[in-house]
Amino acid sequence: MPFVTTQVFCANVRKAADAPLPETVSRAARRSLFNVLGTAIGAARTPAVEALLATAEELGAAGAVPVPGRAELLDPEWAATVVGTAAHLDDFDDTHLATVIHPGAAVLAAVLALAPETAPDGATALEAFALGCEAQLRIGVAISPSHYDYGWHITGTCGVFGAAVAAAHLLGLDADQLGHALGIASTGTLGQREAFGSMTKPLHPGKAAAVGVFAARLAAAGLTAPEDPLGPGGVLPVFSEPDYDELRRDWAGTWELEYNAFKPYPCGIVAHPAIDAAIGASAAVGDPGAITAVRISCHPLVPELMGRLQPADGLQARFSARHAAAVGLLDGEVGLRQFSDERAIDEDVTRLRALTELVPTPDCPRDSATIRVERAGAEPVEVHIEHARGSMARPLTDEELFTKVDRLVEPVLGAGAARKIEAAVDGLPGAPGIDAVIEVMRPEVAK
Amino acid sequence: MPFVTTQVFCANVRKAADAPLPETVSRAARRSLFNVLGTAIGAARTPAVEALLATAEELGAAGAVPVPGRAELLDPEWAATVVGTAAHLDDFDDTHLATVIHPGAAVLAAVLALAPETAPDGATALEAFALGCEAQLRIGVAISPSHYDYGWHITGTCGVFGAAVAAAHLLGLDADQLGHALGIASTGTLGQREAFGSMTKPLHPGKAAAVGVFAARLAAAGLTAPEDPLGPGGVLPVFSEPDYDELRRDWAGTWELEYNAFKPYPCGIVAHPAIDAAIGASAAVGDPGAITAVRISCHPLVPELMGRLQPADGLQARFSARHAAAVGLLDGEVGLRQFSDERAIDEDVTRLRALTELVPTPDCPRDSATIRVERAGAEPVEVHIEHARGSMARPLTDEELFTKVDRLVEPVLGAGAARKIEAAVDGLPGAPGIDAVIEVMRPEVAK
Repeated sequence: MPFVTTQVFCANVRKAADAPLPETVSRAARRSLFNVLGTAIGAARTPAVEALLATAEELGAAGAVPVPGRAELLDPEWAATVVGTAAHLDDFDDTHLATVIHPGAAVLAAVLALAPETAPDGATALEAFALGCEAQLRIGVAISPSHYDYGWHITGTCGVFGAAVAAAHLLGLDADQLGHALGIASTGTLGQREAFGSMTKPLHPGKAAAVGVFAARLAAAGLTAPEDPLGPGGVLPVFSEPDYDELRRDWAGTWELEYNAFKPYPCGIVAHPAIDAAIGASAAVGDPGAITAVRISCHPLVPELMGRLQPADGLQARFSARHAAAVGLLDGEVGLRQFSDERAIDEDVTRLRALTELVPTPDCPRDSATIRVERAGAEPVEVHIEHARGSMARPLTDEELFTKVDRLVEPVLGAGAARKIEAAVDGLPGAPGIDAVIEVMRPEVAK
Repeated sequence: MPFVTTQVFCANVRKAADAPLPETVSRAARRSLFNVLGTAIGAARTPAVEALLATAEELGAAGAVPVPGRAELLDPEWAATVVGTAAHLDDFDDTHLATVIHPGAAVLAAVLALAPETAPDGATALEAFALGCEAQLRIGVAISPSHYDYGWHITGTCGVFGAAVAAAHLLGLDADQLGHALGIASTGTLGQREAFGSMTKPLHPGKAAAVGVFAARLAAAGLTAPEDPLGPGGVLPVFSEPDYDELRRDWAGTWELEYNAFKPYPCGIVAHPAIDAAIGASAAVGDPGAITAVRISCHPLVPELMGRLQPADGLQARFSARHAAAVGLLDGEVGLRQFSDERAIDEDVTRLRALTELVPTPDCPRDSATIRVERAGAEPVEVHIEHARGSMARPLTDEELFTKVDRLVEPVLGAGAARKIEAAVDGLPGAPGIDAVIEVMRPEVAK
């Protein structure tokens, strides 16, 4: 029976699209959207974004689509590329922990790219965002864990499907057209883990957004696609050992989007319990010069994935749990500043990293850690974290999420901007359009 | 040692780029270019191309880049997409038999996309085309046959590299920048065999061209890429069992491009010996109504890949060896007309297909076949083909290639256009630009 997996999947998407979002889903979508707008704005002035914008300008790619944190207006394809890249650039966006997908970047970019021409009301835009994230995550669940293990960057490969579903919703495609859109998108899946540590990694969700928008447009224009792109002949078995039943499952019940988590710290998530512990210990530690040893008991993945001893720049520091703990102890907070190229080689940090031991502890849960700080002439300080902030057991509260976004947004848009963005995102379900969001996510432009 | 495979590969590309093309390579490049311009022009008015152009127009993607066989001028990205798709649309373009790559489509599209802004002289444009084809083929050789067996459409996946190399040559990238371009391109490889039989198949080289141009541009703008995209951590082991030595091999000696072949018939290549035999028998057969049986002894792949008995449309007919032989016997020629939707269901063709038996013959070489036509009241007619036209042992002569292109071009650009295109392509090595080619490949536009 041809087309069957894709057909069932698309029917489920359409069914979900035709009902109002469940309240829990709406809330998860708004939190994800607020977070990813924050990371996109926070990265708005980075070299990678500047390089993309310079190229777009050189090509005369001006248009009507806004870019968070920037004054430029671009054509849909370039806007999708820039926004998706910026949102993922600092590795600070949302994370669906079971698949390690960062679903928000590509979907935000697709929604913004089509907003001017489709002029959705707030509820429709939020639905497009939620449906795009959910479709992406369900495909990701069906191909995990083999897909990531094969070497693919799942945020790029699944991102095209998420962007296509979001774009299809805004363009008003029916279930058959959606199937073609997924088929066209499936030929543009992209990204390997090899790109981690280069600017090409964030480009994956950026290009995924552009591919998804392109695919939905061409499906609307009548371009035909493979028969069953999500089925046994399609791309999924080419790059994983897929669970087709997962793809055919009804969307009733809890959405995967509700498991989307937000990083409190812009670095590898396995080190987050140790950072919580270090921040928790920082006030009690006193003079850092008196520290003689730091011992961190943690899950064995921490030294395995983040074992770097002395990173040479900010990018490398993101893969050093010792660095993350050291800046937590020294600064009492861990944000983008703690992963700057300068901070990565500061003397006090270098000294503390050298004194730090990571003790892999097999029975330590992944969201748990204990830090013990030995001091000359004083009692040791010990802090144990049961569940890290941002973990499933302890998701960021709305206020913690706000603080994170506020710190990202303030240097770009000024004080108070985060509150306005939060209000505009929360107001989407009843808003006549998304102008309120667009207005507050951009710098004031001289009129 | 990081970057080593990519580094060596790029050094070889640059070395080849800095020397004049060997004469045999130049000739192979010009023949490939002439052929693929012909297939692009031949498909210029097909529904898939119209759908792409309508979308481009809707988006306001006008620009300076010409599209073969069309009056429109598009922006580089849309032009690349449309040209690459059109060139591969009828499955009639060039074929590198060892890898089944159709290298010309994506590379032609990349060269045309960048021609207006880089204004290359004729020799540089031809070099870009040759280097792009060759890079693509060498990567294809290194990942064959496992890659195709895994389910990938190698023309899409390797096309991005070919397009990136061609674009990098026109943009003047150095070896390091070329490495970054390949890295960025490697995250956009695309296409599964699942798309065969849909309009998405030709879209693969179209999008590959756009990805390659985009990658070269971003590399020039300073976007960084994975360290060794062609090495063991990159995309190649993700989708094949690569032979890295092949990638590091010197480019001295024969180029893969010299093995690029041209189909005389727009259908699966395994049936070509049977078509030659059918055309060879057609004159002697006389009244088709007297035919009582057709028996074709052929390589076992013919019934395996093209065993369809009664196709329902032109697309299905391309995968029916019985259809191909029947129209060869009836019409004495096999071109696009013989694979139209109408001809696929004509009564005389349907009758003859039903009378045809494919006899898999294990010791029959792939480029060989024998046809035996039984007739009521007359001797049977038997024709044996030792080497099919277009095979390695019997490449199309220049005159046969001309005839093929002439039949493709004439319905779009009128009589005489093919001769002008042939002369313009042959004149490239000494031409100050490529205007002569561009002028003759487009319909006359009212001035």
